Amino acid sequence: MKKPFSHLLTFIIVLTGSYVCKAQSGPAAPAQIHTKAYAAMDAKGKLAPYEFDRRSVGDNDLLIDILYSGICHSDIHTVKGDWGQIPYPCVPGHEIVGRVIQIGKNVHKFKVGDIAGVGCMVNSCGECEYCKAGEEQFCTGNGGPVWTYGSAEGDSYTKGGYATNIIVKESFVIKIPKNAPLAKVAPLLCAGITTYSPLRYNKVKKGDKVAVAGFGGLGHMAVQYAKSMGAEVDVFDITEDKRKAASEMGAAKYVNTTNTQEMDGLNSKYNLIISTIPVSFKVEPYLQMLKTDGTMVLIGVPAHDQIPVVNVMALFGRRKMYHSLIGGIRETQEMIDYSVKNNIYAQVEVIPVQRINEAYQHILDGKVQFRYVIDMKSLK
Amino acid sequence: MKKPFSHLLTFIIVLTGSYVCKAQSGPAAPAQIHTKAYAAMDAKGKLAPYEFDRRSVGDNDLLIDILYSGICHSDIHTVKGDWGQIPYPCVPGHEIVGRVIQIGKNVHKFKVGDIAGVGCMVNSCGECEYCKAGEEQFCTGNGGPVWTYGSAEGDSYTKGGYATNIIVKESFVIKIPKNAPLAKVAPLLCAGITTYSPLRYNKVKKGDKVAVAGFGGLGHMAVQYAKSMGAEVDVFDITEDKRKAASEMGAAKYVNTTNTQEMDGLNSKYNLIISTIPVSFKVEPYLQMLKTDGTMVLIGVPAHDQIPVVNVMALFGRRKMYHSLIGGIRETQEMIDYSVKNNIYAQVEVIPVQRINEAYQHILDGKVQFRYVIDMKSLK
Ligand SMILES: [Zn+2]
Ligand SMILES: [Zn+2]
Ligand SMILES: [Zn+2]
Ligand SMILES: [Zn+2]
Repeated sequence: MKKPFSHLLTFIIVLTGSYVCKAQSGPAAPAQIHTKAYAAMDAKGKLAPYEFDRRSVGDNDLLIDILYSGICHSDIHTVKGDWGQIPYPCVPGHEIVGRVIQIGKNVHKFKVGDIAGVGCMVNSCGECEYCKAGEEQFCTGNGGPVWTYGSAEGDSYTKGGYATNIIVKESFVIKIPKNAPLAKVAPLLCAGITTYSPLRYNKVKKGDKVAVAGFGGLGHMAVQYAKSMGAEVDVFDITEDKRKAASEMGAAKYVNTTNTQEMDGLNSKYNLIISTIPVSFKVEPYLQMLKTDGTMVLIGVPAHDQIPVVNVMALFGRRKMYHSLIGGIRETQEMIDYSVKNNIYAQVEVIPVQRINEAYQHILDGKVQFRYVIDMKSLK
Repeated sequence: MKKPFSHLLTFIIVLTGSYVCKAQSGPAAPAQIHTKAYAAMDAKGKLAPYEFDRRSVGDNDLLIDILYSGICHSDIHTVKGDWGQIPYPCVPGHEIVGRVIQIGKNVHKFKVGDIAGVGCMVNSCGECEYCKAGEEQFCTGNGGPVWTYGSAEGDSYTKGGYATNIIVKESFVIKIPKNAPLAKVAPLLCAGITTYSPLRYNKVKKGDKVAVAGFGGLGHMAVQYAKSMGAEVDVFDITEDKRKAASEMGAAKYVNTTNTQEMDGLNSKYNLIISTIPVSFKVEPYLQMLKTDGTMVLIGVPAHDQIPVVNVMALFGRRKMYHSLIGGIRETQEMIDYSVKNNIYAQVEVIPVQRINEAYQHILDGKVQFRYVIDMKSLK
């Protein structure tokens, strides 16, 4: 099978020498940008303070002072090597909101002081059919997109948003309205687009019946978007603890799947099922809940040893299944604009960076309600 | 999982008494129609001569004198009980072409002497959303469509086309042009619509790259249709014997999958893959050959113990997979009209009914080139 993250294995494990310099602006010799961060030093996945220099601000780049950084389940998978070997130290974080503090001379869409968002990608080839179609997440040039952390870049590799700043090419930066609640916006850059994109792709509309399986960071965004598009939304999770929250977000029905009788009577009900379930699970009962011609979309990527298999005859009746990966940059901007317009945000618990390891453990234990977001002031 | 043919298990195993009567027309008391056939008497699946009476010709019915009956792999699966228990004697056959010899008083689209086709279905509820949409194969009323053989009907069950005649409701009968090569048309009623429908559903167009996996009765129809729609078509099979035939049908490439190096260099090539493979196989290598956003359609139904499973991450990149079942009556008529207009027919070997058991064995042994068709004169 295709290894979706096989490019993660091709990093150049060469670190640039770390030396202190001060940020400069204007036409003087380019200076590297010093950054304070939290990084995992090995596959044990424990995060600790770490300092390094980012590349200098290029003509097409923005330097962003990071205000908030969401914690995505992918961060944990990646630092633990669940998806393959990665270069360490690894600075995770791809749900980034910050303030523009420096711009290159070719930057026109942003000015200093603007609020900017950065998601899972910071570059791509720009020339393949997917880049041209605005689906940079499927870029086929140069080994795929440059992910926000852990991807080869020059003679080093990218480092993400658990940091005081980041430098990103303008065309990969999202505009965030200044009046938006920025801590709650941060998770939209991954969890938002990951759920918004398949709902749009499947043209969810008034009257559709949508199920969201797994009601966490991704799931609670899917529920809000699907609801706002006019769908009747049912929620599936393995806990009783989130029944009230689902109802408050407008879910028509909450199904605790550990209580099998709650799954009765749902066969052939849904036009669309979005599964955010991050571990192995029995897929066939969900496919059975799809209407003829319905679609089940898998988002999120479980650890290699946790990937479900499915009996293909469960796809009888043109019941379709596929995996969706985030969304392109253009659609990410559309998602942010849509979210602000419709007042759709992540439910977050804001923490100082010093609590990051505890937060990781809570996520693994299923103890986080929806999303942790790091207040980056705590690192400055 | 959904048991696609679970309705096959719900037959009423009550046989009508078999008595001889003669066909009548006009308003006199309805008379049952005597039929000579070949039937399987048990799950050993050996076919033998069998006589029975069909119901009388109703006001909306056509009595069809059968000229040709194709042999579909499903016939073999069904009579052997591979898909569940069935009522015996079982008269298979759902690729039927014949001449109309009697019509009910409400029949207006056909007259005596017309050529008629009958495929896999002979009735459905007519009222569910699928029937209304012309997708009778997905009918949800009364336990699903009434299949041409082995489905409950009144206090008996339906019997198919390995017979001298059949009685079918007008709305389930397909018009066949008189000048068409009728033996080669018969297989279109199942193999034709089964392949035509997913190609249309996926809007195959000029320049698309289509792969057809399994180059038999279904596969050779898929190749011809896809080619006629403007696609570049590659063929995959496990034998060297059909390389020339594929090329003659216009295939761009023939891949003998037992020669693994022939599969190199095909990753991300196809917009659409139609798999007709009737046994368990490794699905992931095919999904890997799909482009991002491509679709793999499974047609045909393997025996219960032969159904493949697939690792869901092989669906990465919005690679979709689903199972397609024949097509609706309206689309079946469209397919016949399209086939005649484009001169697309099955490649057939016409046999007398007395060779049916030998033909079954050849099919199971992979010895048939494409399709056997029974010349029903041999039964009269
Ligand atoms: Zn993420
Ligand atoms: Zn590209
Ligand atoms: Zn068939
Ligand atoms: Zn119906």
